[in-house]
Amino acid sequence: MKIGAIEAGGTKFVCAIGDEKGNVEQQVRIPTTEPGETMESVTDFFLANEVDAIGVGSFGPIDVNKNSKTYGYITSTPKPGWKDYNMVGFLKQKLNIPVSFTTDVNVAGYAEAMQGAGVGKSNVLYWTIGTGVGAGYIQNGEFLQGISHPEMGHILLRQVKGDNYKGKCPYHANQCFEGLAAGPAIEERAGKKAIELASDDPIWDYVADYAAQACVNATLFLRPDIIIFGGGVIHQEHLIKKIRVKFEKYLNGYVTTPDIDKYIVRIALDDDAGIKGALLLAVKELAESK
Amino acid sequence: MKIGAIEAGGTKFVCAIGDEKGNVEQQVRIPTTEPGETMESVTDFFLANEVDAIGVGSFGPIDVNKNSKTYGYITSTPKPGWKDYNMVGFLKQKLNIPVSFTTDVNVAGYAEAMQGAGVGKSNVLYWTIGTGVGAGYIQNGEFLQGISHPEMGHILLRQVKGDNYKGKCPYHANQCFEGLAAGPAIEERAGKKAIELASDDPIWDYVADYAAQACVNATLFLRPDIIIFGGGVIHQEHLIKKIRVKFEKYLNGYVTTPDIDKYIVRIALDDDAGIKGALLLAVKELAESK
Repeated sequence: MKIGAIEAGGTKFVCAIGDEKGNVEQQVRIPTTEPGETMESVTDFFLANEVDAIGVGSFGPIDVNKNSKTYGYITSTPKPGWKDYNMVGFLKQKLNIPVSFTTDVNVAGYAEAMQGAGVGKSNVLYWTIGTGVGAGYIQNGEFLQGISHPEMGHILLRQVKGDNYKGKCPYHANQCFEGLAAGPAIEERAGKKAIELASDDPIWDYVADYAAQACVNATLFLRPDIIIFGGGVIHQEHLIKKIRVKFEKYLNGYVTTPDIDKYIVRIALDDDAGIKGALLLAVKELAESK
Repeated sequence: MKIGAIEAGGTKFVCAIGDEKGNVEQQVRIPTTEPGETMESVTDFFLANEVDAIGVGSFGPIDVNKNSKTYGYITSTPKPGWKDYNMVGFLKQKLNIPVSFTTDVNVAGYAEAMQGAGVGKSNVLYWTIGTGVGAGYIQNGEFLQGISHPEMGHILLRQVKGDNYKGKCPYHANQCFEGLAAGPAIEERAGKKAIELASDDPIWDYVADYAAQACVNATLFLRPDIIIFGGGVIHQEHLIKKIRVKFEKYLNGYVTTPDIDKYIVRIALDDDAGIKGALLLAVKELAESK
C-alpha cells in the first residue's frame, strides 16, 4: 500500500510518499505561492505517484469540523489567495481518494502519540514552540476539538516580574504564550538569534516560566498522561529541566501528576514527525472510509 | 422506574428519589460527619426507598478513572475519615445496583448540558463560581477527563493591575482563578458579604476580568459551543455582561466563537441542577450496564 502525506506550510508544501507504518520513501518540496499554482504541483506529484489515501497537516486557521459546510477549508489566513480555500475539496476532486485533514501541529502530535514519546499513553498533549506556539491533544487516538481545533498557543499567561517585554503577538501583545515565548519574541528581546543566546541567559528563565504556566493550565484543563514539547525553541536541551522545576512550583502539589521526568518531556521523533503523522492519519482515514 | 441521586457535599449529603427524566420526587438531607455514620444513613434511605440505579456527584478530589484501582474513592481530602474512602464500593456492596460517580460540578454541568442552557450543543463548558471555582466539560454527553477529572478552578491567571489582593487559595494564593475570584476572595477583599456589595463596586470588575480570562483560555483549549456560569457568585446578574465585554477585549477576535450573548451565559436551571444531573447520570449508567 502507498500512502501520501502533505505538510502544508506558509513557505513550502512538503509532499511525501510512504507506507502504512509512517515510513517515508520519497518526498518533494513545493514553494507556497498562489493556491492554483501550488496545489496543481501538489496534485501532479500524486497523480505521478499514485497513493491510496492522503493525510494533510496544514497551516491555519482551518476548518476541521466534519459537520461544517466549510470542512476542509483554510479559513481566515492573511496569506494572499488562501483565505476560504477548499483544500480537501480540490484534493478529492483531482485524486478521488480519502483525505485526512488537520492542523500542522496536530499531525506532529499524532506521530509523537503513536510512535514517539506518547506511545502507550491514552491522553497525550503535544506543544510546539517555534516561530509560533501551538498544541494538539490526542485522547485514545482522537484529536480533542470542539467547534474547531484548539489554539492553545494563545492562552493568556501571567507576565513574569522583571520581564517587561512588550510582546510579539499581533492579537494579544504580551498577554499570551506565543506573544511572550515564541522564537520571534525571544529574538526581539535578545537582539540576536535564539541559538546564539547563552543557556544561562535570563530570557530562558522567562520562556521556561511561560511554558510551565501553560503546562499547569493544560494539566488542570485536560489531565493528560504526558506533555511533550517540540519545535525549534525546544532544541535548547536545558529548557525542559527549567520548565519542570517551575511547573512543580506553580502547581504546588494541588493535583497528582505522573513522575515529573516522565510527565514533561521533549519529542522522541525528529522534526519529520509532521510527515509521519500525516501518513498515519491517512491510514486511519482510509480505514474509517471503508 | 425509580432513580436515586446523591449530592455528597462537605457539610451535608442530599439524597433524592426521582424519575428517569430527572424530576425529583422526594429528598432528604443528611449531615456529613464520619463516613461510617453518614453513609449508613444514606444507604438506609435507599434501602427504604428502592431505586434501580444511583448517580453521585461528590466533593473531591475523587478518582473517576474506571481503569484505576481506586475508582470510586474520595482521594486526598483533608476531611477527617474521608481520605481514601471507597464510596462507590460501599454503595454497590449495600445496594447492589449500578452507581454513576463523578464530581459535584460535573453533575450540575451535565444537567445544564442535557436540560438547561446547553440543550442541543455538542461541546458544553460549565463553570461554577461559589465557595470554590470548578468546571465540567461535556462533549456529546461524555465528560472530558484524562488521568482524572479537570480542576479548571485553579488555572493560573494574570492578576489585574490595581488588584493587589494577596489571594485566598491555600495552594496558589493570588495566582489562580479560585484564589482571586471565589466567594471567600471577594468577601475578604470587601470586608463584607458578597451579596452586600454594590453592583458597581470595582471588585466585580476584577471578578469579571478573571472569569473572562478563564473563558478565553477555555475557548482556546477546548473550543466549546457554549460557556455556562453557575454558582452563588453568578447570582449577581450584572456579572455576565461584564464578563462578555472583557472576554471580547482579551480574545481580540483571534478565533471565531458563537454570538457572544449565546456563548457566555448564566445557568438555565436553578441551583438544584446537581440532583437533576445525578439522576440523569444514573439513568445513563444503568443503560450502559445492561
